[in-house]
Amino acid sequence: MSVQHRTHADDTGIASFIKHKYFNVFITTLIIINAILIGLETYPTIYEPNRSMFLIADYIILFIFVVEVLLKLWVYKMSFFKNSWNNFDFLIIVGSVVLYSTPFVSVLRIFRVLRVMRTISSVPSLRRIVSALFMAIPTIGSVVVLMSIIFYVYAVIGTSFFAGVSPEYFGNIQLTLITLFQVFTLESWASGVFRPVFSEIGWSWLYFVSFIVIATFIMINLIVGEIVNNAQKLSEEIEKETDNIKEDTIEIRELKNEVRELKDLLKTYISKKES
Amino acid sequence: MSVQHRTHADDTGIASFIKHKYFNVFITTLIIINAILIGLETYPTIYEPNRSMFLIADYIILFIFVVEVLLKLWVYKMSFFKNSWNNFDFLIIVGSVVLYSTPFVSVLRIFRVLRVMRTISSVPSLRRIVSALFMAIPTIGSVVVLMSIIFYVYAVIGTSFFAGVSPEYFGNIQLTLITLFQVFTLESWASGVFRPVFSEIGWSWLYFVSFIVIATFIMINLIVGEIVNNAQKLSEEIEKETDNIKEDTIEIRELKNEVRELKDLLKTYISKKES
Amino acid sequence: MSVQHRTHADDTGIASFIKHKYFNVFITTLIIINAILIGLETYPTIYEPNRSMFLIADYIILFIFVVEVLLKLWVYKMSFFKNSWNNFDFLIIVGSVVLYSTPFVSVLRIFRVLRVMRTISSVPSLRRIVSALFMAIPTIGSVVVLMSIIFYVYAVIGTSFFAGVSPEYFGNIQLTLITLFQVFTLESWASGVFRPVFSEIGWSWLYFVSFIVIATFIMINLIVGEIVNNAQKLSEEIEKETDNIKEDTIEIRELKNEVRELKDLLKTYISKKES
Amino acid sequence: MSVQHRTHADDTGIASFIKHKYFNVFITTLIIINAILIGLETYPTIYEPNRSMFLIADYIILFIFVVEVLLKLWVYKMSFFKNSWNNFDFLIIVGSVVLYSTPFVSVLRIFRVLRVMRTISSVPSLRRIVSALFMAIPTIGSVVVLMSIIFYVYAVIGTSFFAGVSPEYFGNIQLTLITLFQVFTLESWASGVFRPVFSEIGWSWLYFVSFIVIATFIMINLIVGEIVNNAQKLSEEIEKETDNIKEDTIEIRELKNEVRELKDLLKTYISKKES
Repeated sequence: MSVQHRTHADDTGIASFIKHKYFNVFITTLIIINAILIGLETYPTIYEPNRSMFLIADYIILFIFVVEVLLKLWVYKMSFFKNSWNNFDFLIIVGSVVLYSTPFVSVLRIFRVLRVMRTISSVPSLRRIVSALFMAIPTIGSVVVLMSIIFYVYAVIGTSFFAGVSPEYFGNIQLTLITLFQVFTLESWASGVFRPVFSEIGWSWLYFVSFIVIATFIMINLIVGEIVNNAQKLSEEIEKETDNIKEDTIEIRELKNEVRELKDLLKTYISKKES
Repeated sequence: MSVQHRTHADDTGIASFIKHKYFNVFITTLIIINAILIGLETYPTIYEPNRSMFLIADYIILFIFVVEVLLKLWVYKMSFFKNSWNNFDFLIIVGSVVLYSTPFVSVLRIFRVLRVMRTISSVPSLRRIVSALFMAIPTIGSVVVLMSIIFYVYAVIGTSFFAGVSPEYFGNIQLTLITLFQVFTLESWASGVFRPVFSEIGWSWLYFVSFIVIATFIMINLIVGEIVNNAQKLSEEIEKETDNIKEDTIEIRELKNEVRELKDLLKTYISKKES
Repeated sequence: MSVQHRTHADDTGIASFIKHKYFNVFITTLIIINAILIGLETYPTIYEPNRSMFLIADYIILFIFVVEVLLKLWVYKMSFFKNSWNNFDFLIIVGSVVLYSTPFVSVLRIFRVLRVMRTISSVPSLRRIVSALFMAIPTIGSVVVLMSIIFYVYAVIGTSFFAGVSPEYFGNIQLTLITLFQVFTLESWASGVFRPVFSEIGWSWLYFVSFIVIATFIMINLIVGEIVNNAQKLSEEIEKETDNIKEDTIEIRELKNEVRELKDLLKTYISKKES
Repeated sequence: MSVQHRTHADDTGIASFIKHKYFNVFITTLIIINAILIGLETYPTIYEPNRSMFLIADYIILFIFVVEVLLKLWVYKMSFFKNSWNNFDFLIIVGSVVLYSTPFVSVLRIFRVLRVMRTISSVPSLRRIVSALFMAIPTIGSVVVLMSIIFYVYAVIGTSFFAGVSPEYFGNIQLTLITLFQVFTLESWASGVFRPVFSEIGWSWLYFVSFIVIATFIMINLIVGEIVNNAQKLSEEIEKETDNIKEDTIEIRELKNEVRELKDLLKTYISKKES
């Protein structure tokens, strides 16, 4: 996720400017100020009387962010997009600019809040954690597919049989999928979802218990697997070290042969001399 | 779970046909289409006007699945049943065919949905995960027996003492077992189950708290045990490697003896010559 | 937990009788029959018409259990009590007999149900699991003390400040401890316990959030610690193996010295001869 | 956290007095008596008639604690504050004394309860566990920062969009943060928080499901990471041991060269002699 940028502009004033440590500190400070302003806007008593001030501050911050991205683009050229964090920053800022002049106010509001997430991209230690988290995703990929199949099968069965009894939870496949997610988190699965269905359909306990057992079992095995996978990497390092032992064994055997040859040589010589 | 099939029919046209990679792609596509159709059937606005079309599509898909199983049976003969995944496919398809002409409509519907599970048997990476999950079952076998005993003991006590106070949850052993499963998942165990009983029977907190502590303790130890077992396998591999060290030690000692003998031989010779 | 019994009676008929494998099979069968009968007794429609039959069956089973314990006591003498499982059996059976003639019917009923737990003591694989579970207790001992202190501190604070607002949950220290256990299991901690208190006392969120964070943090660390402890044992075994390496290093150095001495010897001899 | 105190006063009577094992036993006993009294005070039927007695007992205990701290300060001088446990004791006792004469009765009550926590600082095995727990905090530090950003982003989005629909849960950022903590613990997230919002705002499921998935994913990875980190420390110890193997390999090669030289020497000598 981290790409080293070496371009022609490396030594120009702009390059050294945007690479200066105070530049990053300045941008991070701005991100935090932006975050605080966005938070304050949710309080009507603070926001309403200062509406125009908030708007101007937002314009200024967004303008600086746009300048930042343009400068980085100018310095790094297309290699800018090789870094996923840059793509993330680019998307959020371009999204904010584009949506400003459109009527999609709700989407704009979400984009503005997502700018808070730029804290992650501007603080190296947070970038490292998030990168580590993304690294864990491929190993859980096929488990997600397996879970999807199980969710789908249970969603179709649930919708087919319980739609009439409990339309709020099992009315259609989308609703049933949300309900199954709720059951998967074990939240009110019995008191809210299962008990009302159970009072009408006697075998429904089998549906819920089997779903919880299977889903939990897969989740636990996924976590156990992740731990064991990481432990395996550690033990492979140790095994690599112990590979030397095998080489040693071969070397020692060769050494033994050498010594034996030496002894035979000496013995032959002595017996010759003495005879 | 995977059995290599080598039969007389290996080189015939049918064998190469069903082993062709596009055959598997075709069947997998059909399974997915089947899954989508089954999902769409749960929407009355889509299903009702196209009832006959859905029925025909289902007939066609089931017919192709039957042909697929028959072809595989013809090619692999009885070794077909040595593979658990084939047994799973066979059961689901035979079940669907047999139930089509019976009045057990509900069971048929479940069998039709289970056909979606054939995705697992037709995609190798999913087969591997599920096989790995099944491998974890024997190690948890005796823990399941232990949990059953604890559930039973608590079910009998719960039914004996709380049936009068809370018949919905503790009316009979079956109901109590379901309630205990709910308590085990910690879902509304206090707000829904325990508090109403507690207001009548003062010592009931001991029943619930002890059950939760024991059941959770066993579960946590089961998971810790599974992790440690897997780590043990890794460490046994390392220990196997380090077994070489012991051999090396023996070899080195033998080598030392050889060298000593050599030295003695030379010393004797020299002393002889000089005397 | 398992003690090998070697007594004078080892070779008598009674000793070989109670050690016969069919004797254990017979007792285990009786425990299971006893368990089924106790289960059936909870169904009034089955129990009420056959009250006397159930009573007779229970008398007979208890009588056989008493004979079993007496025989074992006669054979093993006092070494019988060195095995914790025997103590467990003894306690349950003596308890049942003693309570039969007392008016403590409820306690007797619990003792009778606990006889089902004898399945564990009579099946070796279950005994092993339970022994393993008991082995994990000492390592969690001081964590339990720590948790008790935290529970007590929060119970006193909770009772002092919330007793007036929510007497059902925080009326006195006992009630608050039960409520804290419920909060610890995260069951309805917000919807049932916290929200009503929060609407009256603004800072109560600090009480609940801090309790959940601290208690969960301790629990997670306890589990992580248990896993790491077990992994440590494995790695100590590996380290013991690799201790050989150190010995090898010494041996190899000694060998090198031997070879050097040999070379010097030969060199001296040759130079002498040639001079 | 443990600092060895060696001061001029080491050999005086006071130093040996406060270091005597019975002194610690006496203080621990007093802490426990204090804890019991504080517990009893929550029962109005016990407290009200003996109000003055409880007050006197509290004065006496606090006085002894003050004397204890003064003695320790006199013996250890400023090195007293180098030990975090001493700081903890000092803060709690000074806090109690200072607050006694102020009108902040509620804060005083909490300080008095916190005196129960002194059990931890006076029992070595508990101190060790708590120290171990504090050691785990730095490794989870940046994860806490990451979680804070995610909580803040979701809090702003939640307040912006759901404040109108569900003011009790999403009325302002503080309330939303508490609600998000509740959702994070999965407590009534669906039945209490999500379902009422969902009936008004269709896309709200995305908000809740994504929050739960992200937050749980981070938590699970944190725990897996902690286990793997600890395992890594163990494997590094093993790797250090196996470093000897590399040295051995070098030694064995050197030895081989020595033997070869020896053989060449002998061969040259023999060929010379024979010629």
